[in-house]
Amino acid sequence: MTSKDGFSWTKADGLRPGIPCIGAIQPSSNIKSTDTEFDVIVVGAGYAGLTAARDTSVAAFSGLKVLLLEARDRIGGRSWSSNIGGYPYEMGGTWVYWGQATIWREIARYGMQDELESSYDFSRGINRFLLASAEGTQSFTHDEENVLMQKCLSKFFNVDGKDGRDALPMPHSAHLTPSDRRFDNMSVADRLVEIQHNLTPNERLCVEGFVLLCSGATLATTSFYEMLHWWALSGHTYEGCINHLVRFKFRGGQSSFAVRFFEEALATGNLSYALSQPVASVEDSAHRITVTTRSGQAFTAKYMISAMPLNVLSNVAFNPPLKEGKATAAKIGHVNQTIKVHAEILDRDLRSFTGISYPHNGLIYGFGDGETPAGNTHVVAFGGQHKHFHPEDDINRTISEFQGFTPMNVERVVFHNWSRDEFAKGAWFFPAPGLLASHFEELRARQGNIFFASSDWASGWRSFIDGAIEEGTRAAANVRADMIGQSKN
Amino acid sequence: MTSKDGFSWTKADGLRPGIPCIGAIQPSSNIKSTDTEFDVIVVGAGYAGLTAARDTSVAAFSGLKVLLLEARDRIGGRSWSSNIGGYPYEMGGTWVYWGQATIWREIARYGMQDELESSYDFSRGINRFLLASAEGTQSFTHDEENVLMQKCLSKFFNVDGKDGRDALPMPHSAHLTPSDRRFDNMSVADRLVEIQHNLTPNERLCVEGFVLLCSGATLATTSFYEMLHWWALSGHTYEGCINHLVRFKFRGGQSSFAVRFFEEALATGNLSYALSQPVASVEDSAHRITVTTRSGQAFTAKYMISAMPLNVLSNVAFNPPLKEGKATAAKIGHVNQTIKVHAEILDRDLRSFTGISYPHNGLIYGFGDGETPAGNTHVVAFGGQHKHFHPEDDINRTISEFQGFTPMNVERVVFHNWSRDEFAKGAWFFPAPGLLASHFEELRARQGNIFFASSDWASGWRSFIDGAIEEGTRAAANVRADMIGQSKN
Repeated sequence: MTSKDGFSWTKADGLRPGIPCIGAIQPSSNIKSTDTEFDVIVVGAGYAGLTAARDTSVAAFSGLKVLLLEARDRIGGRSWSSNIGGYPYEMGGTWVYWGQATIWREIARYGMQDELESSYDFSRGINRFLLASAEGTQSFTHDEENVLMQKCLSKFFNVDGKDGRDALPMPHSAHLTPSDRRFDNMSVADRLVEIQHNLTPNERLCVEGFVLLCSGATLATTSFYEMLHWWALSGHTYEGCINHLVRFKFRGGQSSFAVRFFEEALATGNLSYALSQPVASVEDSAHRITVTTRSGQAFTAKYMISAMPLNVLSNVAFNPPLKEGKATAAKIGHVNQTIKVHAEILDRDLRSFTGISYPHNGLIYGFGDGETPAGNTHVVAFGGQHKHFHPEDDINRTISEFQGFTPMNVERVVFHNWSRDEFAKGAWFFPAPGLLASHFEELRARQGNIFFASSDWASGWRSFIDGAIEEGTRAAANVRADMIGQSKN
Repeated sequence: MTSKDGFSWTKADGLRPGIPCIGAIQPSSNIKSTDTEFDVIVVGAGYAGLTAARDTSVAAFSGLKVLLLEARDRIGGRSWSSNIGGYPYEMGGTWVYWGQATIWREIARYGMQDELESSYDFSRGINRFLLASAEGTQSFTHDEENVLMQKCLSKFFNVDGKDGRDALPMPHSAHLTPSDRRFDNMSVADRLVEIQHNLTPNERLCVEGFVLLCSGATLATTSFYEMLHWWALSGHTYEGCINHLVRFKFRGGQSSFAVRFFEEALATGNLSYALSQPVASVEDSAHRITVTTRSGQAFTAKYMISAMPLNVLSNVAFNPPLKEGKATAAKIGHVNQTIKVHAEILDRDLRSFTGISYPHNGLIYGFGDGETPAGNTHVVAFGGQHKHFHPEDDINRTISEFQGFTPMNVERVVFHNWSRDEFAKGAWFFPAPGLLASHFEELRARQGNIFFASSDWASGWRSFIDGAIEEGTRAAANVRADMIGQSKN
């Protein structure tokens, strides 16, 4: 099946919207026309919604009826795999790791531990780290890259003489400490001012390139706390960051994992679902929640789990409206406008390169991510609000941004423009200074019988698939707890 | 409630068997006399059995009836918390970490992320690492300890020029590679011969002390592969080992976590259980499994999940008998005979010490693990087959073994002798060379409708609570898959 989402370009076909995708769901709905009443309605079929739908479906309450509504023509939300000749370019979330507890538990549960492969293959050709700045390109071994990155990140996060270990010892806590809030009210730009005399020019390039890869924002709009949180989650080392953030991916694509959740839920016989059904409004009155789609269909349930991202919460008309703190946070939104672009290139010698091209280039961070069925090299590259561009607006510019790392012969370009996606309005969650300090607890709070599940406000791996599963689990558990509580009354 | 398990000693009361325990289950059984037929019988209420019982109980098969049989008067198996004036001395498994995916996912699921505390408090008194050998005691800062330990372990595991990173890149794989098997046929003693000229005397003491802490065996009976596996699971660094193995524990005791599994299963209404009911025999015939307890009660079910440790599998008469590979492995058993002893000591100054006392001392590894309600220091210490002793046989000797680290005033001793425990016959799983290379797959295999779940043959955190949950999950999933398969026929 081809999704409406995403773009691909080749010299022969030019730029085309819509890409074949792995894990498409057929038929697009299984709702019977008489089915309008449910126990739980889950809105959004990203990992948070998929997990919530699965966990409520399999719950031991006989007769629990679950409806899953999804705006897009596919599951996976901000994470999905294209399928180009069987090769899964990852349009959103890609990498997973056994140090990410929530997702790894699911990978083990589905017996998929051996379906991972490393993105890196440091064995051939230009087996180097290329650091391209306005002044020219320097070349390092990957061992030198590791030393340089560890050094600059250690300086950047060393707010306590312990590389951040004392400042953020328990990164999975569901509560922000006063120290967390202080760091959240600080931007990365603020932090760089503190240490500017302690960084070499290369260290400064590397730390800024790394931060912007993580946040997809600018130095001024990136919360220092959130970066410190990623660092702590990764075990306070650069090696930990690489392992947790960008090393291992599914050989069969991220979507090969997402469909497992969906299929398990479906197998219970308790799940109804409909794709391509964006929700227009949610009305909560008289102990019933009515969810109405843009197409005018209305469904009711006792509970709703909203599994929509922060930046699109305002798309839906809630009545009564979202409580003030949540509404304010939704209005502020998060700042990640990552550009993620894949290129299939003829240069086999570039399989082993990694690179930062900054601050002059639109794509900041790139590396060899795989070998395509044709034997070409697959390069993935990232940009963001720093020199933002829309890849589909000028494909020649997009191709030339890849040259910012090193010359390469681009045969194919594949991407999803998350910034123009009305159901995402950005990539993974990344907060500007102050958002979490002011609104974290409010984002996580229920409102009546509506529970809010999104990776955007997970307590652990916030912004990651891991955090989405954490949140879907939390919402399903809350529904169950509520039902048990009520059944006792 | 007081368990029959464990011993405590104080000057006033002397040595006493049985210790109050957290998470006791009352009543000890809920089986109705007419209840003899079940869908699934789970034997063993350690974490593997608890998880299996929970996951089959909550499964969406209406009417699924689960029976959980446990030999002891408490749940938790080789992991349980005493309760001495509200203070939870941990008799078995203690530490957990968010890098251990399976257990962390459950901790998050039960919302217990903020119920952890660090065992270490490096803030006061004798804030030192004491390295006691036959020649005397050296004293180091904890920073020096970290450098020394990282150095010696890096040499020990550096079989590939990458500190083991290339030798064991995917430690959660469910399959052993030829390289894994080669390292498994090698003992730690063999490995030490290879690097003996490259170790300083202190490095040698530290690496041997650390290995024996992990294996509870001797250098000759400790599989080098299994140590390498722990190292890889921990991220190939000493800091990773400390984080994963001995840093964070439940403020309310490990048992406060175990009871959550039990309570969730019970709340489904599908769970029958009986404590203090050791199983004598298992008969599998005519598509029914009959489980008979030592007290002569017989129960039948379509499926059984054996959640007993390797070393006690031979306690039960299976008919037909266990298949050859599994039977052979059960006969060989694992080699971990760890002695774990707690002392409450008057010396507040020792809260921050860590120590290795080796090779002359019976307790090899010890450190300040907490502060008791009386304001005293809680020290935990470990020995094993190297200079093995039974702590209850000569309590004065046991107390004097603590002095092997540094002089201390022992007020109370608490421990569980796992070596003489007929339902454990040892501590956490640790294999001698060759066991996994020859029998790993066979240990994991089903036999008819009997599934075998134990941390002892987990693919990831084998020997850990994390691995037990991994295995309980696998068994429950296998039962469900089997039922779905059959329901299609």
